[in-house]
Amino acid sequence: MVSYDATPSISQVEQRMLELVFPDQGEAGAAAAHHLSAGGSRVRARLAIHAGRALGLSPRGTIAIATACELLHNASLVHDDLQDRDPLRRGQDAVWRRHGDAVAICTGDLLLSAAYGALAGTGAAAGSLIARMHARVGAVIRGQCEDLALQGGQVGALAAYERVASGKSAPLLILPIELALVLAGRYDAIGAAEHAGARFAIGYQMADDLDDVARDALNEELNIVAVLAAAGEARPREAARALAIRRFEEARAAAASLPRGCGGLLAEQSFARATALATDLETT
Amino acid sequence: MVSYDATPSISQVEQRMLELVFPDQGEAGAAAAHHLSAGGSRVRARLAIHAGRALGLSPRGTIAIATACELLHNASLVHDDLQDRDPLRRGQDAVWRRHGDAVAICTGDLLLSAAYGALAGTGAAAGSLIARMHARVGAVIRGQCEDLALQGGQVGALAAYERVASGKSAPLLILPIELALVLAGRYDAIGAAEHAGARFAIGYQMADDLDDVARDALNEELNIVAVLAAAGEARPREAARALAIRRFEEARAAAASLPRGCGGLLAEQSFARATALATDLETT
Repeated sequence: MVSYDATPSISQVEQRMLELVFPDQGEAGAAAAHHLSAGGSRVRARLAIHAGRALGLSPRGTIAIATACELLHNASLVHDDLQDRDPLRRGQDAVWRRHGDAVAICTGDLLLSAAYGALAGTGAAAGSLIARMHARVGAVIRGQCEDLALQGGQVGALAAYERVASGKSAPLLILPIELALVLAGRYDAIGAAEHAGARFAIGYQMADDLDDVARDALNEELNIVAVLAAAGEARPREAARALAIRRFEEARAAAASLPRGCGGLLAEQSFARATALATDLETT
Repeated sequence: MVSYDATPSISQVEQRMLELVFPDQGEAGAAAAHHLSAGGSRVRARLAIHAGRALGLSPRGTIAIATACELLHNASLVHDDLQDRDPLRRGQDAVWRRHGDAVAICTGDLLLSAAYGALAGTGAAAGSLIARMHARVGAVIRGQCEDLALQGGQVGALAAYERVASGKSAPLLILPIELALVLAGRYDAIGAAEHAGARFAIGYQMADDLDDVARDALNEELNIVAVLAAAGEARPREAARALAIRRFEEARAAAASLPRGCGGLLAEQSFARATALATDLETT
């Protein structure tokens, strides 16, 4: 079992994630453990840990929500890679390539169940945390279905693009801070966390698209530059970059407004990304 | 929202399941709702309701665990049908046939998440319920992986057959009574519930095999009659039937020993199945 240090840390989250996927029990457990051991930035766990510390939550509660969010994210990666037939994840064979489709389905299921399992030790708040988490999982799945339905197609308007861009990734960026706010009883701030996460997700997708304009055009994949070009923008690439910067700035402002600095890490990340894009803009 | 009648009923479970899969939100929600609307015996929900009533649980708690167990079972059906490429479920196209593989993965994920979502309203017990449920989900997934690995192969010994037979179905037969016992604080009786569920699952698989001897031989699928024949039984079919009866009788005895008659429905089902097989035996 994880021993709860005075200061919650990523290494405690790593240990707890491993415990929860039963790495010694069957092929899916081994596959999940291997997938987790291949690394990842653990952004969602870091957001939860930062928020938990800022809000003065117990180490046990903080580790629980950080572990839950990170496991959910990894569940979605394993199933997304299978759905999209992406062969590589973190420089290694994706689970479906290494273990086959059926075991990849089981592995994602195990990670999803483990995410809820992570919330078991949160006492009286467990029910509220579960309810929030299921609502966000529902939103992610809806976003993923919309994304799948769009593949090979196009969306016309910017609003539709932004809805798709935030649909499948915003919920899991919002959740770490949201669960920390629930544990702290700060339900009043969840709206701002939602706004910050959604803006960040949109900015992130736009920045990603800017790196992939040519490839996406070739594969007929949705790309903000193509959306703006179709809308009549004379310089769609520059317009897209400016729009991404604006979204990151909105995310930063909303995250910075959260109580007791609990959105500080998301604000920092937003600022860093806006700055990187602005520097890019000047040198283009 | 579900209104909690004084007497928990299957129709309340049906309504709660629908709410939890967000039927109006996206293709996976619609697919999950359609899958649920196609019927099913709701055995796991009935086991939970029977146990909840017997143990004097609150209607809200009873509906929550019944809904959770039934949603879990349906999540496993949607993903199993995809993994096994079973085209039909309850006389209709399986989700993967109707919506494609990617949406079927999302639909199973949604049902799995909804199962945990169902536990949100269980108050202080939610954490314990989650922990139990995740442990059983882990066991189901392990059993499913073992079953997948065996397809086209054979197991030699009866013990191995019984392990596979109980591996993927026993956990979800145990869970309804187990969660009721947790809500009632009767942890002492969980071992007996586990035994009853495992024996029932083995008996059930053997009875199923007896109906499919010829087809399983053709498809090289695991079948108790083939296992006993390989072990040198002169009359393997009769031996299999006798063994199935014994397993149902063991299940009945263990279920009947549970506190306040909370295993009464499982005991009844076990008795009815043992009797049906014994009658069969006499007329063969």
